[in-house]
Amino acid sequence: MSDDILKQFDPVFYPKSIAVVGASADAMKAGSYWVQTLVSAGYRGPIYPVGSRGGSIAGLEIYRNIRDIPGEVDYVIVAIPSRSVLDLLDDCAAKSVRAVQFFTAGFSELDTESGRSLEERMVEKARWGGFRIIGPNCIGVYCPEHRVSFLMGAIGEPGCVGFVSQSGGIAGKLATNGMARGIGYSKGVSCGNGIDLDASDFLEYLAADPQTRVIGAYLEGTRDGRRLFNTMREVSSVKPLVVWKGGRTEVGARAARSHTGSLASSPSVWSAVLKQAGAVEVHGLDELTDTLLLFQHAEHWQGARVGVIGGLADGGGGISVSAGDACTEIGLEVPPLSDQTDRALRELLGEVGSILGNPVDVSQAQFRGFPALFQAIETVAGDASIDFVLIQQDVDILLPMYSRAGLETINDFFIELRGRLGKPLVMVLPPGPVEQERLRLEQKLLAASIPVLSSVERAARAIFNVNTYFRRREIEAGQRDAA
Amino acid sequence: MSDDILKQFDPVFYPKSIAVVGASADAMKAGSYWVQTLVSAGYRGPIYPVGSRGGSIAGLEIYRNIRDIPGEVDYVIVAIPSRSVLDLLDDCAAKSVRAVQFFTAGFSELDTESGRSLEERMVEKARWGGFRIIGPNCIGVYCPEHRVSFLMGAIGEPGCVGFVSQSGGIAGKLATNGMARGIGYSKGVSCGNGIDLDASDFLEYLAADPQTRVIGAYLEGTRDGRRLFNTMREVSSVKPLVVWKGGRTEVGARAARSHTGSLASSPSVWSAVLKQAGAVEVHGLDELTDTLLLFQHAEHWQGARVGVIGGLADGGGGISVSAGDACTEIGLEVPPLSDQTDRALRELLGEVGSILGNPVDVSQAQFRGFPALFQAIETVAGDASIDFVLIQQDVDILLPMYSRAGLETINDFFIELRGRLGKPLVMVLPPGPVEQERLRLEQKLLAASIPVLSSVERAARAIFNVNTYFRRREIEAGQRDAA
Repeated sequence: MSDDILKQFDPVFYPKSIAVVGASADAMKAGSYWVQTLVSAGYRGPIYPVGSRGGSIAGLEIYRNIRDIPGEVDYVIVAIPSRSVLDLLDDCAAKSVRAVQFFTAGFSELDTESGRSLEERMVEKARWGGFRIIGPNCIGVYCPEHRVSFLMGAIGEPGCVGFVSQSGGIAGKLATNGMARGIGYSKGVSCGNGIDLDASDFLEYLAADPQTRVIGAYLEGTRDGRRLFNTMREVSSVKPLVVWKGGRTEVGARAARSHTGSLASSPSVWSAVLKQAGAVEVHGLDELTDTLLLFQHAEHWQGARVGVIGGLADGGGGISVSAGDACTEIGLEVPPLSDQTDRALRELLGEVGSILGNPVDVSQAQFRGFPALFQAIETVAGDASIDFVLIQQDVDILLPMYSRAGLETINDFFIELRGRLGKPLVMVLPPGPVEQERLRLEQKLLAASIPVLSSVERAARAIFNVNTYFRRREIEAGQRDAA
Repeated sequence: MSDDILKQFDPVFYPKSIAVVGASADAMKAGSYWVQTLVSAGYRGPIYPVGSRGGSIAGLEIYRNIRDIPGEVDYVIVAIPSRSVLDLLDDCAAKSVRAVQFFTAGFSELDTESGRSLEERMVEKARWGGFRIIGPNCIGVYCPEHRVSFLMGAIGEPGCVGFVSQSGGIAGKLATNGMARGIGYSKGVSCGNGIDLDASDFLEYLAADPQTRVIGAYLEGTRDGRRLFNTMREVSSVKPLVVWKGGRTEVGARAARSHTGSLASSPSVWSAVLKQAGAVEVHGLDELTDTLLLFQHAEHWQGARVGVIGGLADGGGGISVSAGDACTEIGLEVPPLSDQTDRALRELLGEVGSILGNPVDVSQAQFRGFPALFQAIETVAGDASIDFVLIQQDVDILLPMYSRAGLETINDFFIELRGRLGKPLVMVLPPGPVEQERLRLEQKLLAASIPVLSSVERAARAIFNVNTYFRRREIEAGQRDAA
């Protein structure tokens, strides 16, 4: 079964050749954009531009019809007006293509009878022609490993996170956010109106895909709620599934209807369904990205008792207070540290100007040198009552204070600590005027499996989301054992 | 009265000379740090380092006692241990200084009898000596206009936003966030334990200060709740006051006690007090910064009916849907556009692939050229049912699509539109892999009075906060008229 589904999606995520219909010598045409995108992604199989006027684009000959292409065609990207798509699908069948993705829009999302009936006939043609349809009204597939992309320019590193998005814009932002924030994708897909392969199909695939360990989804609606629910429940039982539901409000739903033709349910129904299915619900792109990033690095999850360390040259009092608020308000535990830890900190930091509970403000250690600072941090991180460690450092202040060499020393320590610690370490690096340095540091920490977030509030939210998933899994496992 | 208070605070924010006690030839000592900070800020008056061992720092002679300084001393920064401060205050009185700021910690925040009694004696000495105390346990004053700063390195541009913070770390982040995000400060202060001049005093000053138009505050607690409430009510009646209360939770409050010695009240009490006082409550540094930025640019506020424009090369469907959700969930109105606007958009964008309601997805215009795109945006922005305009653009996608020249053309149009429009325009630029370009664009838009936020959720929240203030003012004005 699992092998079946992997084989079935092979031409979608690992096509051996790609045709782009709607290409022309004019580089500004949508079809030409797709050709350039595949070239810039470094796709290694043959790319066949197709356009009625012929000519060439990006050094590639443009075929006048898909039937004229000499080699086999696995995957077709379509960027021609909707009125011409039925004829094209006949050509696709004749050419024995295996998957067709429609960038083309103008179907059921227009809320017209003709839009809907056109979709029905497309699906019929696919059944008879023996190929699958992705979309329409979508940007298709992102598979860094195979160098297939919907983004012009760079492509991210492969990784263990998969995503499904009913919006092309959100799919694009997930991909670019991944590059910026160190999320590696196994594969992602924008499935648009989903008339043949829909979100449920792709979720099933990602659940089976051995390269995918975590799954994110942006969903606006579904035509088969029961199936989506069952699929999400299946998926969640084997991998973390994080879902952002768009079109929760009437205004959002109004836009969603014209966007993907989705019928909306009320937000409370969706929230209940997601919870029952064991999926983690998030409420925006930032939260989705943060949560996927944390899941990617949460291989040894033990619980949600947070040790908060502030005061890395930021005069950490207020930071510690607000981190305590942010964690507690969202429902994370920030427990007192052991008496032994407390005594050790009192010795290392002194009482004056310090906050010795949890959160811990280590700012006084900066006047006592790095060894005291590092020992204080390690004492807190190692405390047995702490499941993971949340640290904030302020590059804007650290940099002029210690210069870049000092900043490196501090972060080399964190990287080394992360290796020894055996519990997750989350770093908060708030943005500021020295963004260059902050971004450089972010990349360094990410490379060492330390996820970086931009505020304690966002970190607390993402930690909470990850913990919610693992706790539910634990409870379910307990119920199974008891039964 | 107002003139009185301005005069009284003159030596605090506009000192003619500054002494730093606790300086030494060792650049890593806290006092030396303060000397270097003032030098790097470009403070123009005389800086007098003071330290028992003499020598020099940053090319300046170190006096052994504050009494030895040849010239007059307006302002003193103290970075010596708490046990020596009473003697120092006698010297300050002898020297007729006018304000003393204590970086020194180790007072009531230790929760000891000796800490509290030391503070009482310091205040007594200040009364007899004729000077005021800032702190202790604080980093003091930030006044870009007068080039006084608590930040090593760069200093921001002067502006119309004032702040008061009971945390030095948060004060520092407000200042650096201002530099990064285009918030200009009139003056700011970190007031620590506030044993003499406290948050209420500084709020009163900022309300009177003609250079301050908007006020932000980070507060952990107060010793005189009644006075703080009355002050906040006074302040809010003349200028927007945005308050972030730290130590809302038990964990946060525990940290706050060791931080500024603050006694906490329950979060619901604080929320009710802030609302009654007419202040806008926020829940973190990001929200505080976003809200201050919006207030800075909200000179012509008419209401909160938002026109949302998505699809600037981001395949704007999902973005439009989620912007609709974000605005509506927080309580902003995203009204339908007029029939006339609707007809115009239908002509400019076509129906296929577009979302023509509000939110509007203008992505199809990108295939019709800039004139159509700009006309579509202006049609929405100009609609009479819209009070302000929220636009999202995605630099990661725009840049490879249009190159930098195209990106400039689009944003020159926004800047020009902002000038003509007579309503606020808020820009969302989500972060991504081409941060350099995004930050450059952010600076360009900020210079043209277009506030930039990083997500629609954050933008919606900040718009809501600004609108809450102005609506309350309107209601109050109506009540006054009726009475």
